[in-house]
Amino acid sequence: MQAFVLKGHICQSRDAEHIEITENGFLVVEDGICRGVFGALPERWAALPVTDFGDRLILPGMSDLHLHAPQFSFRGLGMDMELLDWLNTYTFPEESKYRDPAYADRAYDIFTRHLLHSTTTRVSVFATVHREATTLLMEKLDRAGLRGFVGKVNMDRNCADTLREASAAASLEDTERWIEQTHSRFAGIRPILTPRFIPTCSDELMRGLRVLADRYDLPVQSHLSENFGEIAWVKELCPWSSCYGDAYDRFGLFGGEHGCIMAHCVHSGEEEIARMKQNGVYIAHSPESNMNLASGVAPVSRYLALGLNVGLATDMAGGSHESMLRAMMHAIQASKLRWRLQDEAVKPLSVDQAFYLATAGGGSFFGRVGKFDDGYECDAVVMDDGDLDHPQPLSVRARLERLIYLADDRNVAAKFVAGRRLF
Amino acid sequence: MQAFVLKGHICQSRDAEHIEITENGFLVVEDGICRGVFGALPERWAALPVTDFGDRLILPGMSDLHLHAPQFSFRGLGMDMELLDWLNTYTFPEESKYRDPAYADRAYDIFTRHLLHSTTTRVSVFATVHREATTLLMEKLDRAGLRGFVGKVNMDRNCADTLREASAAASLEDTERWIEQTHSRFAGIRPILTPRFIPTCSDELMRGLRVLADRYDLPVQSHLSENFGEIAWVKELCPWSSCYGDAYDRFGLFGGEHGCIMAHCVHSGEEEIARMKQNGVYIAHSPESNMNLASGVAPVSRYLALGLNVGLATDMAGGSHESMLRAMMHAIQASKLRWRLQDEAVKPLSVDQAFYLATAGGGSFFGRVGKFDDGYECDAVVMDDGDLDHPQPLSVRARLERLIYLADDRNVAAKFVAGRRLF
Repeated sequence: MQAFVLKGHICQSRDAEHIEITENGFLVVEDGICRGVFGALPERWAALPVTDFGDRLILPGMSDLHLHAPQFSFRGLGMDMELLDWLNTYTFPEESKYRDPAYADRAYDIFTRHLLHSTTTRVSVFATVHREATTLLMEKLDRAGLRGFVGKVNMDRNCADTLREASAAASLEDTERWIEQTHSRFAGIRPILTPRFIPTCSDELMRGLRVLADRYDLPVQSHLSENFGEIAWVKELCPWSSCYGDAYDRFGLFGGEHGCIMAHCVHSGEEEIARMKQNGVYIAHSPESNMNLASGVAPVSRYLALGLNVGLATDMAGGSHESMLRAMMHAIQASKLRWRLQDEAVKPLSVDQAFYLATAGGGSFFGRVGKFDDGYECDAVVMDDGDLDHPQPLSVRARLERLIYLADDRNVAAKFVAGRRLF
Repeated sequence: MQAFVLKGHICQSRDAEHIEITENGFLVVEDGICRGVFGALPERWAALPVTDFGDRLILPGMSDLHLHAPQFSFRGLGMDMELLDWLNTYTFPEESKYRDPAYADRAYDIFTRHLLHSTTTRVSVFATVHREATTLLMEKLDRAGLRGFVGKVNMDRNCADTLREASAAASLEDTERWIEQTHSRFAGIRPILTPRFIPTCSDELMRGLRVLADRYDLPVQSHLSENFGEIAWVKELCPWSSCYGDAYDRFGLFGGEHGCIMAHCVHSGEEEIARMKQNGVYIAHSPESNMNLASGVAPVSRYLALGLNVGLATDMAGGSHESMLRAMMHAIQASKLRWRLQDEAVKPLSVDQAFYLATAGGGSFFGRVGKFDDGYECDAVVMDDGDLDHPQPLSVRARLERLIYLADDRNVAAKFVAGRRLF
């Protein structure tokens, strides 16, 4: 058994409303599993090796519930359009390039390197429709030591010719082949079913994906209620649906026995919200993307109050950056503008809530992840704020708040995923 | 005469709507003044020494029209309140510490070092009420080679006892002494009159400041129409005023013969807008601060269309960061949410407009600054985007867009202010 202790200022969510800080605390880890955080090291673990991170902060590794690996190449570009035009103008042409494994190899190397040095430890990633490139991405993330899900995208209608799969049957066959090749191949990366969104997936394709979900016990990720144009289009394509979420639910691809992540949920109505709660759907709140594409702002504090599963996402490259710290900043800022400009009944997010979303909130999609309590997998990032200098003494709590607004990859001093130190 | 040439991909605003890019261009500088940008180096300057920045981008230095130097110490902290509570809880206690020159020395060293390595070359800064500390800040900024204005703050009512000046007369006497000591002492830093805002300045103080403005030909900076509570308070304090701006204008501290910067202008009504245009008031748009303090979003593209003077500001520490690149990002993002959530009649800001605000828009407050045209002072930052890697070729235009979202101090490879190279 591998066991060790990490020492530092340990921060984690007690619940969605409260960050709990143990200064100069001890985090005990056995075989990759946390045994808890202690103010003084209990006698029974006194003999374990201690890595002392001194005055640094130890945070749970963060879970990015939604991002597009092939879009990393154009992060920060093309933010002058709304969703549907943006997909056709920027996204689809770039994603078409991943047919070429050499291009995918180069691009996914860059993506993986950046992700490795971020505060992210778990991900749920969209790749492209290309089986080979998707498998390559899984290999790279796994080799880097990151964990989570990668999806080969399905699209058999309403998209660029260069990306559209030949038919529902061809898409399903290719997807099943990819699942066979990857579902038990990697230590930390697993496949996830990824119908891009209703507009690009025929009914036949959706029915077939449900069969695969059952056959291989796979979760699902997709997009939901991001943009008004998109929502109207779904209504047109699925006149039988009572809401956008219902268009997934009728095919059994909206939570329930298989895990499900839906990105955005900016404009979800009451029925959709109730259905997400009932089915345990995870909402991937993507604040920067929702600003950049002028989609709006999801009512996140309301979702939390209703007891829905909510996590945070960068949605790169709708979002410009892979940093979950920035995603926290944007979540708080967007929620304040929503409160001021749209609806004072939905409170702005607090720092404590944003931290919860980025750690425990999204982490629970991956199992016992996002906290340091007994039984949780040990995902941790060690933050060094030495270059964020200040003239006055600051509490650990204040230093944590500053990290959200000011830190970048330079401040990530060490990273552990499931107990393994990556750097 | 000192003359030289800078070579690189030169980007500047042609007007408020268009960025103009000269790839592998030549910027000719004589005695700190630009002679223009050329695709090929004209014969008459062929003998000048050329500094070749290769594949790097050369941008005009940026002007931060509004930031608070003493608040740098708590940047990224205390974002859970609106303006008036935030001032009392966080700002005033911190600003009180600048009575101690040793504290100011330590704090302003950190502030100046961060500013030096940003893309900012010109600033209009609030210090505190303390004469000695304010002069110290001016010395440090001047020694670093930055240019612009620093204001000793005036407050003789409605603020913490530890900051309130004893009387209007005492405040004015101290201010005049500070002006005498500093108005011709520094190469690049000059004093600016700085009544904090109407609520903290008595009528007598305002009248006296106008006398000083005339006597020393000084510009004025203050805050305007940031927050609903603040606006209501001004109305209560100045029942005779027709709008918040009028409360400055009646004292002759709202543009006209002396330059004037007003920060925020989030909720300015038609009369106030007309008065700003008539008086040539500069609006310091502070988007991150206006998000963080849940103030709202100023209708910036409308201000531009109306021909008002508008520049960009970090408003640190209402804003968390000294980066004008981030301020551009936040300006664009905030404008998109305003468009989506509040008023579709006011268009979101484009990248070109945000770039204009950060360079030529705000720069003109400082003279001929913010462009590379013949006669402009040579403020330039050289941006190296080598670490912002990507798998595909990118145009210079695309690389510039990415810098706004992704670059930080690591990407600022060189900096010139009025022709002098700082690093």
